[in-house]
Amino acid sequence: MRSLDKEDIENLAVGAAILGTGGGGDPYLGKLTAIQALDEGYEINVVDVKEVPDDALVIPSAGMGSPTVIVEKIPKGTEIINAFKTLSEYLGREVYATMPIEAGGLNSTFPLAVGAKMGIPIVDADGMGRAFPELQMTTFHINGVTVTPMALADERDNTVLLKTCDNYWAEWIARDITIRFGGTAWIALYPMTGKELKKAAIPGTMGLAEKLGAAVRETKESKGNPIDAVLDVSNGFELFKGKIVDVVRRTTGGFARGEIKIEGIDEYKGQNLLVHFQNENLVAIKDGEVIASVPDLITLLDLETAMPITTEAVKYGYRCFVIGIPCSEMWRTEKGLEVAGPKYFGYDVEYKPIEEIMGGMQ
Amino acid sequence: MRSLDKEDIENLAVGAAILGTGGGGDPYLGKLTAIQALDEGYEINVVDVKEVPDDALVIPSAGMGSPTVIVEKIPKGTEIINAFKTLSEYLGREVYATMPIEAGGLNSTFPLAVGAKMGIPIVDADGMGRAFPELQMTTFHINGVTVTPMALADERDNTVLLKTCDNYWAEWIARDITIRFGGTAWIALYPMTGKELKKAAIPGTMGLAEKLGAAVRETKESKGNPIDAVLDVSNGFELFKGKIVDVVRRTTGGFARGEIKIEGIDEYKGQNLLVHFQNENLVAIKDGEVIASVPDLITLLDLETAMPITTEAVKYGYRCFVIGIPCSEMWRTEKGLEVAGPKYFGYDVEYKPIEEIMGGMQ
Repeated sequence: MRSLDKEDIENLAVGAAILGTGGGGDPYLGKLTAIQALDEGYEINVVDVKEVPDDALVIPSAGMGSPTVIVEKIPKGTEIINAFKTLSEYLGREVYATMPIEAGGLNSTFPLAVGAKMGIPIVDADGMGRAFPELQMTTFHINGVTVTPMALADERDNTVLLKTCDNYWAEWIARDITIRFGGTAWIALYPMTGKELKKAAIPGTMGLAEKLGAAVRETKESKGNPIDAVLDVSNGFELFKGKIVDVVRRTTGGFARGEIKIEGIDEYKGQNLLVHFQNENLVAIKDGEVIASVPDLITLLDLETAMPITTEAVKYGYRCFVIGIPCSEMWRTEKGLEVAGPKYFGYDVEYKPIEEIMGGMQ
Repeated sequence: MRSLDKEDIENLAVGAAILGTGGGGDPYLGKLTAIQALDEGYEINVVDVKEVPDDALVIPSAGMGSPTVIVEKIPKGTEIINAFKTLSEYLGREVYATMPIEAGGLNSTFPLAVGAKMGIPIVDADGMGRAFPELQMTTFHINGVTVTPMALADERDNTVLLKTCDNYWAEWIARDITIRFGGTAWIALYPMTGKELKKAAIPGTMGLAEKLGAAVRETKESKGNPIDAVLDVSNGFELFKGKIVDVVRRTTGGFARGEIKIEGIDEYKGQNLLVHFQNENLVAIKDGEVIASVPDLITLLDLETAMPITTEAVKYGYRCFVIGIPCSEMWRTEKGLEVAGPKYFGYDVEYKPIEEIMGGMQ
């Protein structure tokens, strides 16, 4: 068990947004709720997966919906607590800890405030090792943990307790409730035992995010190259460097969807990169050729600040690095690719690990 | 307390479909589930409103969605029990009785099977004295009873427990869940005490429906005029007699909507009647003049059989009587008309009680 201070939270929010691969929400908004909890005198305690007893109950917590809406409809902070309480009361058992379901500027930090206010620790783990747009796109799902019973809440104190026949139905119904809530919902879901957690979660995602955030900050302070530091900590690859010349964006079906066009600069001059997104960046196509795709991570970093650019904030004129980071091996299995490979998202693309694509290019 | 036999159920289903004013579902399908419960050895017991103790818990049960979908997707019978159990377990109190929320071929009879299988009586009352398309269109709502906590279930055993900030939000979110369920949901809602029931419910709707159904059957058997018998029992008015020459129908937003065009025959020859519906018949316009509107009841009866024609079954070629029946006085208050008057449904029509319109025509 370790406690997080403000600097840890700032690092976590930035690093998680890098792993959020365009989604998972804005790191600035994310850190606010957690820092506010500290300011109110709450403690934020983090435990490792192996510290969680096998029979303990863990309930992840998160925001759901389009990040383009969340930035305009900032939560009161009580919504997610409301969802968490609704589910834990329904289960009627003592809850040992909460945790994130994904890595992202918001969804890595929201559970911190939940844990703080409920007086329970946050498990250093998640169910994606990145961000994904749909509820069943988790390593929990791949390993047989069910999304429901799940609770959803909004800022009007509307709450829903959902039990579905499978995880796809959970996504299908919860997504619509999210839309009727006005585009965002606050959720508690995937209740699981410590034993299930150890099998199904990706351990250490929060620690990795903190390291990534710290690397960016420290290298900037020492006038070093933060992009190199990020690539080093994440085992990532530089994919492109350029200026954003067009963003097509539509909020449909409760998601932020669109394409980002980037024109190369410096050594990439004359080349073009197209990035497709659905909340998260999904596929990067350089001059007609796929150079990275889900489930591997594609992240845009601001050329000057090295801060991650999320899909709801991306706009014309930004100069950015585009980097690719290998996903968890759990995503590279047959089941993993079926759940979150490029074909699931409608792309006629055979997934190739980014290391292979980049190795072949050198 | 009295028990219903098969004949009572047949009468109830037909009479309730007359009060269902085009909605509330098909009486044939409705009676099947109740008669099946009798065949399985269950008892169906009905209590009067005044028999219910003030502190007893009553939970109404119903089907929700488009009747055009229900007739093609016939329920297994376990869905509504599932919804009922979900809500009663959540409330954690003994349930004294169930009851219908509206009068209709399906929604008056589904609660019979629920009561039978749960071993509790059904209260002879409802919350509309007719059928209406939306959840907040009840005398419960007018009298301050809340729709939620409410449970919804489908045939895949998906269940939702909903708590909303008001009754309009309950309709808004439940309607969408119904759509995602595939067009129909099975619901338990408006949990209330005996004391609330006595203030907010319309008493005797089931008994009235049984009388109407019996009147149709008995007059047909004695070669009398069943239409006159219906008008007599219901204090209703003959509005029109004609042949259906066109039906425009669309299933949108989870509702069956459309218009029915009827060409006059016999003494109505040369005249035309247009009936607008949204699950239920809402407005009847004769040669451009409104002759009946919500919240008063507008019902089509088959010219030969005197059986009510529901909006999902209405089609070209039927010859029918159109009758109008005065609604409960609770609907004629300012609050009642605000909730279910013609203006709520988007018609620029000032509501006039059908007795006034008909009186003025004589």
